[in-house]
Amino acid sequence: MMTLEEKFRALEADNAPGQEVRRKTGDLNSIMRGEKLDGIPVDFSHGDVDAFPPAPGSSEAWKNGFESGGQQAYTEYRGAGRIREELADRLGKFTGKLISADRELIITPGTQGALFLALGATVTSGTKVAVVEPDYFANRKLVKFLGGEIVPVPLHYQGDPSDNGPDLNRIEEAFRSGTKVFVFSTPNNPTGLVYSSSSITAISTLALAHDVTLVVDQLYSRMLYSGEVYTHLCACDTQPENLITIMGPSKTESLSGFRLGTAFGTSKLIDRMERLQAIVTLRAAGYNQAVLDTWFQEPDGWMEKRIREHEAIRDELLGIFRAADLVTATPQAGSYLFPQLLPLDVEPSTFVRLLRHQAGVTVTPGTEFAPGLSDSIRLNFSQDHAAAVAAARRIVRMVEIYRK
Amino acid sequence: MMTLEEKFRALEADNAPGQEVRRKTGDLNSIMRGEKLDGIPVDFSHGDVDAFPPAPGSSEAWKNGFESGGQQAYTEYRGAGRIREELADRLGKFTGKLISADRELIITPGTQGALFLALGATVTSGTKVAVVEPDYFANRKLVKFLGGEIVPVPLHYQGDPSDNGPDLNRIEEAFRSGTKVFVFSTPNNPTGLVYSSSSITAISTLALAHDVTLVVDQLYSRMLYSGEVYTHLCACDTQPENLITIMGPSKTESLSGFRLGTAFGTSKLIDRMERLQAIVTLRAAGYNQAVLDTWFQEPDGWMEKRIREHEAIRDELLGIFRAADLVTATPQAGSYLFPQLLPLDVEPSTFVRLLRHQAGVTVTPGTEFAPGLSDSIRLNFSQDHAAAVAAARRIVRMVEIYRK
Repeated sequence: MMTLEEKFRALEADNAPGQEVRRKTGDLNSIMRGEKLDGIPVDFSHGDVDAFPPAPGSSEAWKNGFESGGQQAYTEYRGAGRIREELADRLGKFTGKLISADRELIITPGTQGALFLALGATVTSGTKVAVVEPDYFANRKLVKFLGGEIVPVPLHYQGDPSDNGPDLNRIEEAFRSGTKVFVFSTPNNPTGLVYSSSSITAISTLALAHDVTLVVDQLYSRMLYSGEVYTHLCACDTQPENLITIMGPSKTESLSGFRLGTAFGTSKLIDRMERLQAIVTLRAAGYNQAVLDTWFQEPDGWMEKRIREHEAIRDELLGIFRAADLVTATPQAGSYLFPQLLPLDVEPSTFVRLLRHQAGVTVTPGTEFAPGLSDSIRLNFSQDHAAAVAAARRIVRMVEIYRK
Repeated sequence: MMTLEEKFRALEADNAPGQEVRRKTGDLNSIMRGEKLDGIPVDFSHGDVDAFPPAPGSSEAWKNGFESGGQQAYTEYRGAGRIREELADRLGKFTGKLISADRELIITPGTQGALFLALGATVTSGTKVAVVEPDYFANRKLVKFLGGEIVPVPLHYQGDPSDNGPDLNRIEEAFRSGTKVFVFSTPNNPTGLVYSSSSITAISTLALAHDVTLVVDQLYSRMLYSGEVYTHLCACDTQPENLITIMGPSKTESLSGFRLGTAFGTSKLIDRMERLQAIVTLRAAGYNQAVLDTWFQEPDGWMEKRIREHEAIRDELLGIFRAADLVTATPQAGSYLFPQLLPLDVEPSTFVRLLRHQAGVTVTPGTEFAPGLSDSIRLNFSQDHAAAVAAARRIVRMVEIYRK
């Protein structure tokens, strides 16, 4: 049994995206080589919603929510019925899965909220949970907070695209040896890898066979690049009994400031998630829920343009990193890049702090995504194009300065 | 060790305020005596923000937050620094306690969020937690979800005001026998009782002596009625090492639709709460945080008028219930009434459903606040005055109809 002290050590958040402002930098001056590098500071730890502003109509939708008063301030814990009705329909069309608005859908405070509720509803002391490495950092922390046991599953992402993907043998092995829950993101955070149709089918079939609950985080599934194909597990022919799919408008649509997410799937689990939400936050902020009315309803061409602009940034940054021999997988979707650094004279964690201090570039260390990946860094490239390119060049310059 | 099934049975939320819409009513027609009672439906399960609208300037403050873009969308997990700075100052003036904005204050998604984080930071498997009966229903559920053990402490609220208050002997007994955390609300939810200065001093002194963490929920402390005195435990001379105070603008100020709360106190616990927030919801919705700029900054006379209007409703409802022999304590603060019903021919839980079905009156059953209080009901009387009075008369009429 973990003490509270141990439990909260496992939740250490000093390197989490957005928390960099709390770090001390006093010791860096004695380590720093040369001068500070000029350039517009870029915070790659999250997307820049000033460069890619919120989807059109969001503040107007919020105002409608506010003006509808009490009914929107105090919704059911799972979210306003009218909004869920319309959303279930649109999410159903996007994923190819019929969703019951009444029984199978919950609105949450962000997709982070959805993840917490989904794992809170399925993980307790001793529950074995398969977690992909690398994957979104909160997955591992959530399992630890809930007292579960992590069963790591490797993701291959740097090889030949046709060999890449989650290690299906390790997944089967985990499922055979008592794993009860499998949580993963596709597109993968931090690599941008999209699970292939055959991987998705295999995972779904294995989960059914071994009665494993699946929690599939599809946060970035709308931002799919040219020529890529996305497979929705929830629409597979063969499915496990317990399945939760998570989506939200925070990323591609730049609506993170509203803290809105959704989860849909097995009614029994959605019920549990609502009960948990009742004691965690009651509900997603009432007026904000109305902003979901704009989701999957963006003006014609808006999403296509946004994807095209991100793809252009992706391609230019990939070129810069690869020219400098930093191995970097091609993101198939989403706005994350996960370059691998070269061997350095300083600890990777120090290098990340130097990047911010000396080069004005904030990135998230790879260790947030898998304990062993200290030589990689994650960038959210949803940024001003020119500033991102200049900042990527500064990263390369910094690698040269501190190279072993 | 509780299974997930048992854990979520303990979180049953069908009777929770706002969830009544999910209940089936089919079986009630065969039990119902006589006709439906006419009148404007009143939902006493929560305040009516259409009758008492949000504090002035809230939507404008929200708009300022939205327009300030990325910096407000992605704040530190504990909330935007600038907003915390100003808030710490105003909360300090209200409570008489100096608060460090950097180390001792966190902004949360509602006071529900603050309660979850405070208990999540201090309660784990086997932790003994003293919980007042009656008190806010989520307290018990949170302790159960976190694996803690509830040590009940009775609150005396129906006797002579000078004898009322928490049972200090039982508190001392609980503290002596291994209780590590004590959570309570003052003003008490559901009775409106304000803990006296001597009770507060005694609790604080006992907590120091026995190294008990205190979590004090002061959600309603601003709505204090004529002649009443409020004692802030956080400003006591003698204090325990670990103390968290919770406040928020959701109730008196009718800002519940924004889901904003705050907690302040022991820096080590605030750190833990932030780490937990990072995996639960990341942060309170960014743009909404800006609405805290209006808190404790309401126009001159606004709060006094709001309190006066609630006091008038309180007095009239008390008169109606007492004339009908329903024992009802006088709320000293807040907008809850907790009348005790007379012996009935139907189960109290059925009576509550009949109230909604036959009389258009929604109330929360007493069992949500203490397992043994099925003969009491809670009303949030922050409602349209005339509609609330008419609904209270219908409650009395319904008691007569179903009286044993």
